[in-house]
Amino acid sequence: MRNNNRQNNEKREVNFKLDVNIHAEGAVLVSFGQTKVICTASVDDKAPPFLRGENKGWVTAEYAMLPRATNVRNVRESIRGKLSGRTMEIQRLVGRALRSVVDLTKLGERSIIIDCDVIQADGGTRTASITGGFVALKLAVNKLIEEGIISENPIKEYLAAISVGVCDGETILDLEYEEDSKAEVDMNIVMTEKGNFVEIQGTGEETTFTDEQLFEMLAYAKKGINELIRQQKEVLGE
Amino acid sequence: MRNNNRQNNEKREVNFKLDVNIHAEGAVLVSFGQTKVICTASVDDKAPPFLRGENKGWVTAEYAMLPRATNVRNVRESIRGKLSGRTMEIQRLVGRALRSVVDLTKLGERSIIIDCDVIQADGGTRTASITGGFVALKLAVNKLIEEGIISENPIKEYLAAISVGVCDGETILDLEYEEDSKAEVDMNIVMTEKGNFVEIQGTGEETTFTDEQLFEMLAYAKKGINELIRQQKEVLGE
Amino acid sequence: MRNNNRQNNEKREVNFKLDVNIHAEGAVLVSFGQTKVICTASVDDKAPPFLRGENKGWVTAEYAMLPRATNVRNVRESIRGKLSGRTMEIQRLVGRALRSVVDLTKLGERSIIIDCDVIQADGGTRTASITGGFVALKLAVNKLIEEGIISENPIKEYLAAISVGVCDGETILDLEYEEDSKAEVDMNIVMTEKGNFVEIQGTGEETTFTDEQLFEMLAYAKKGINELIRQQKEVLGE
Amino acid sequence: MRNNNRQNNEKREVNFKLDVNIHAEGAVLVSFGQTKVICTASVDDKAPPFLRGENKGWVTAEYAMLPRATNVRNVRESIRGKLSGRTMEIQRLVGRALRSVVDLTKLGERSIIIDCDVIQADGGTRTASITGGFVALKLAVNKLIEEGIISENPIKEYLAAISVGVCDGETILDLEYEEDSKAEVDMNIVMTEKGNFVEIQGTGEETTFTDEQLFEMLAYAKKGINELIRQQKEVLGE
Amino acid sequence: MRNNNRQNNEKREVNFKLDVNIHAEGAVLVSFGQTKVICTASVDDKAPPFLRGENKGWVTAEYAMLPRATNVRNVRESIRGKLSGRTMEIQRLVGRALRSVVDLTKLGERSIIIDCDVIQADGGTRTASITGGFVALKLAVNKLIEEGIISENPIKEYLAAISVGVCDGETILDLEYEEDSKAEVDMNIVMTEKGNFVEIQGTGEETTFTDEQLFEMLAYAKKGINELIRQQKEVLGE
Amino acid sequence: MRNNNRQNNEKREVNFKLDVNIHAEGAVLVSFGQTKVICTASVDDKAPPFLRGENKGWVTAEYAMLPRATNVRNVRESIRGKLSGRTMEIQRLVGRALRSVVDLTKLGERSIIIDCDVIQADGGTRTASITGGFVALKLAVNKLIEEGIISENPIKEYLAAISVGVCDGETILDLEYEEDSKAEVDMNIVMTEKGNFVEIQGTGEETTFTDEQLFEMLAYAKKGINELIRQQKEVLGE
Repeated sequence: MRNNNRQNNEKREVNFKLDVNIHAEGAVLVSFGQTKVICTASVDDKAPPFLRGENKGWVTAEYAMLPRATNVRNVRESIRGKLSGRTMEIQRLVGRALRSVVDLTKLGERSIIIDCDVIQADGGTRTASITGGFVALKLAVNKLIEEGIISENPIKEYLAAISVGVCDGETILDLEYEEDSKAEVDMNIVMTEKGNFVEIQGTGEETTFTDEQLFEMLAYAKKGINELIRQQKEVLGE
Repeated sequence: MRNNNRQNNEKREVNFKLDVNIHAEGAVLVSFGQTKVICTASVDDKAPPFLRGENKGWVTAEYAMLPRATNVRNVRESIRGKLSGRTMEIQRLVGRALRSVVDLTKLGERSIIIDCDVIQADGGTRTASITGGFVALKLAVNKLIEEGIISENPIKEYLAAISVGVCDGETILDLEYEEDSKAEVDMNIVMTEKGNFVEIQGTGEETTFTDEQLFEMLAYAKKGINELIRQQKEVLGE
Repeated sequence: MRNNNRQNNEKREVNFKLDVNIHAEGAVLVSFGQTKVICTASVDDKAPPFLRGENKGWVTAEYAMLPRATNVRNVRESIRGKLSGRTMEIQRLVGRALRSVVDLTKLGERSIIIDCDVIQADGGTRTASITGGFVALKLAVNKLIEEGIISENPIKEYLAAISVGVCDGETILDLEYEEDSKAEVDMNIVMTEKGNFVEIQGTGEETTFTDEQLFEMLAYAKKGINELIRQQKEVLGE
Repeated sequence: MRNNNRQNNEKREVNFKLDVNIHAEGAVLVSFGQTKVICTASVDDKAPPFLRGENKGWVTAEYAMLPRATNVRNVRESIRGKLSGRTMEIQRLVGRALRSVVDLTKLGERSIIIDCDVIQADGGTRTASITGGFVALKLAVNKLIEEGIISENPIKEYLAAISVGVCDGETILDLEYEEDSKAEVDMNIVMTEKGNFVEIQGTGEETTFTDEQLFEMLAYAKKGINELIRQQKEVLGE
Repeated sequence: MRNNNRQNNEKREVNFKLDVNIHAEGAVLVSFGQTKVICTASVDDKAPPFLRGENKGWVTAEYAMLPRATNVRNVRESIRGKLSGRTMEIQRLVGRALRSVVDLTKLGERSIIIDCDVIQADGGTRTASITGGFVALKLAVNKLIEEGIISENPIKEYLAAISVGVCDGETILDLEYEEDSKAEVDMNIVMTEKGNFVEIQGTGEETTFTDEQLFEMLAYAKKGINELIRQQKEVLGE
Repeated sequence: MRNNNRQNNEKREVNFKLDVNIHAEGAVLVSFGQTKVICTASVDDKAPPFLRGENKGWVTAEYAMLPRATNVRNVRESIRGKLSGRTMEIQRLVGRALRSVVDLTKLGERSIIIDCDVIQADGGTRTASITGGFVALKLAVNKLIEEGIISENPIKEYLAAISVGVCDGETILDLEYEEDSKAEVDMNIVMTEKGNFVEIQGTGEETTFTDEQLFEMLAYAKKGINELIRQQKEVLGE
């Protein structure tokens, strides 16, 4: 049996807390069970150098964990002097996912940086970052529209992410750390409200998986993402 | 007039929130007004290399700010690839201050790392880090004692820190960012419950200050630190 | 029409050239069309530190491109002083993929490092690296067996990788750079000879994709990987 | 008894040797006993980026020690690849102190960089750096005035620094390394010729200090700084 | 006796393979026996910053070895995060040597970067890099002339390099790794087709050498370089 | 005419000042005209890791310039975060040269580090570093012998270095910066008291040189090195 009597296709309790930062253009503290991530959106009035003069904007993301977000304390990446491969992989994923639902030309020549800082980790920090990051992004975009800085909504549709995996031969949704650490297969899915895929990343470390397992994982993920998008809309008042 | 009708010798509303981390041996979210810092204490069962075999322990601190803790977003130090001089100065100060009230031989051959991560900044992040860091340290030490890992309390007395400065010619206590950025003199004081100094760091950038100003600043700081220590004791149930 | 009159589900001409290095325990120059990668396997008689004393081995990979492997010259990562996120992502993927078909306990306390150096790039360097890296790994393992250093074959089954994508609305197999750079969806699949998945990484940058597109891409990839594994067996004399 | 029969409130023999560099706009070899620091002032015709267009200049400092300036050889920071926290703290202090007596608008849009390189260390290298750095700065400013590059003297008053501490319970002035390494309290004071404070940095590592000790240290420092400023004026021919 | 019955003044079999890269403006795979280096020339339409506006161009070189180019695998410099002293020394030498025969004003405001990547090493990688680098440079220059981008040939004369040394008291030409590793004296000579020196670098590690040995080494080198230049001309069709 | 009426084969005034450091095992301030280098020798009681257990020692060197040693201030390498190619080339040369006259087995399992810090530069800093470094090394070795730590003198013979070049078509000895910066050929020669070569490094940047020029340069260097060794012996009291 899973913790808190969760069904295999049942996600953890998810919560979005707004108004957690007086400075940022958008901010939310998202929690997937004990995983807690502060997501802020910062608007910069310049496009990145590679887009200058192209009359479009950019959305990017950065990801980090506080040293004691995890059970064993991690050395800070600022002290190591470089980002780990894991951090780079995650922040590239978050940025790419968010850009997939943004019409960058409607954003104008500006950048929105989504910072995802994991305050406490218990599995699924990257899917929480994408899901919370979308909320922070939406808040910042709403602000740009309200202030008349942009006229058209650049966000094409809602987007969320969830993890799914195979653990002791069973397909399960939204893995906690304890499940994740012993899973045979670990997959992260990013989908839009229309049910289309943005990203599928499935890995069998030291093992493989079948078509059937893949399809079941996709079905669980779809269910979870629908629920997440419903909650995002609720907290954003739509 | 200061914000919130504060008197010159009146500190901001200070709050300590416990139970903010399921992993750390001690954790507190300290707020001095809008300045919010998560302080965690992590116990490591090894002394640092330079103390091996000396039968004593160590207390050290690390300090960082989330990129959007400030009004203008900061580039992460992990991306710059190195700590700024400011960060190093602050974390050396926090560690040194905390060690001044710890009997390191009573700690045994172990290290306690105090992580001070600024979630939101509005002036006084280093004094909040010391004041909150002490609470996290005390919680971790209490746990070590409860679990029978150490037998004697290594903490000699309570300790807190506060900033004081001269702004428009007036001495004021516990500066907000807006005050800090225009202050003629900026001073940070660390004191113990017995009223002794641990650290005095006073600076006149592009100006100087007199004996009289120094003495008034010391008096204000003493008052503020007494109040902070009273609050620390309260939240720690003493 | 695709270059060289390729069908949508047809991979490029793939070639494995052995005996390209007098020093390495295994070496192959793999080419997928104009993409050319030197893969060497180096056996190190120590397991990595995190496995010491666990009586098992490790397989890892490193990836790099010569500066002029691409049409526009790239600055060397040694001069930048750090690996890019892209490099880290790829080499983590290659290592993880190869480990999925190795019984690490049968390898004993040793490491095999697969170096994948792209001599010339034209799309699909990561899938060529996995596919060629497997051949280098197999050669090194054969050598260890021949020399009596290990007694049982630690390689559980063959493995190869191929890219698949959606370009101008059509699903295509094994994308060249020109196709890759304008593809709506880009997916890399790693599979074993039994037809199981090891890794699925599908991304729609600035777009999304449907279930139907996913299934067609998976089918194309399966076909391509079967052909690659047939070629691997041929060149390895099985 | 202190070395060389020094009284507790007596500084070491201090010497300023001019004309030690044919290239620099200002240069002095300052010695506080066996502590020897080469201070050079380099004028750069640009203000730093953060001041461009503000019609004012900047004074900054850098600090380093030769590897064998100390009894045990230190690894070079160029080889470590980064500055230590100690170095950054010191060079920030030196720059800040010197700026406090400079009217930056009278300097015009240019920078003066004070390099403090410790040739031999025996305690008090930061106070020697400030005291000698002031002389190098004054020489460079004199040259700018003589050459008609600036018309008004931007230096508002003389400035010097000295260390003071508590050692075996006694307050002492200008600590040698041997005294410094066992001191209970270590304090560095920067003052101007009018007797105002620029910087007070007092620290009790693993201990605390009282109001009385603070006041005695301040009195000793005042005496020492008066003497240093008299010597600076003499060597500069005022 | 030397390997392959080589005489003391006989170089190894040297080969130049053209058309090894579809992207570069010039490319050659040069082999000196088992030493194999890919040399590519990349034309950049900008002069380096220190030459901007001087109406002349620049030629520079970069050098690297694949990790398993050597018998024992080397850690990548991209992972170490910095170039070794050896790499810097070699690439500075290669660039300087090539520039000595180029009239940089005839090149116009552009840069040519010669990348020398050692695929397999067996001694003499720096002399192979210079000798092959010249061929790549010449190919790129020919292309610039053919395309009418430059009108006059900036290459003043041919140039090649070879190693020479003293091993067991005998002077030998073009040392293999095995000879190099036990040589008493190691010397690299760069000469032009007119028989003039460009660079002489002779070193006795843990030993010294006499005038007579120097003169014999120079004579052997001259012979070898003449042969190399004859081969360069042949492969370049002159 | 050269500065100070120097003849073409005449070196600058050279001076060795001993007793310039109270901490180091050997120390000298060497000056070649306006070029001034502090050379210290530090004895470390461990051999470097690659020699452990081989019953022999090591001699190595490090080289740096103070930022204002030159006419235009240089950025510190500690701030750049890495050594330049030039620095690495020089310190490798200095170490290699000094080792050539040391019997490392007679040194025992210890290291001697020669630090060459250029206080003021006017051409020839690397030859001054070798020549002064030898004196520091000899002083440290003498001390080891006096203290009975080693019994036999590991220094086989004296050694010095000097630069020579071709400037406006004339061969000249010991180039000042002004000569060096316009020289057609620049050569550094390291020789022993017996007149044997340790190192020859001759370079024609953007030009070439003939046999005749080479021989004249070697003759001038020999003369200069003989004179330097005579001075070394004098200052060392032999």
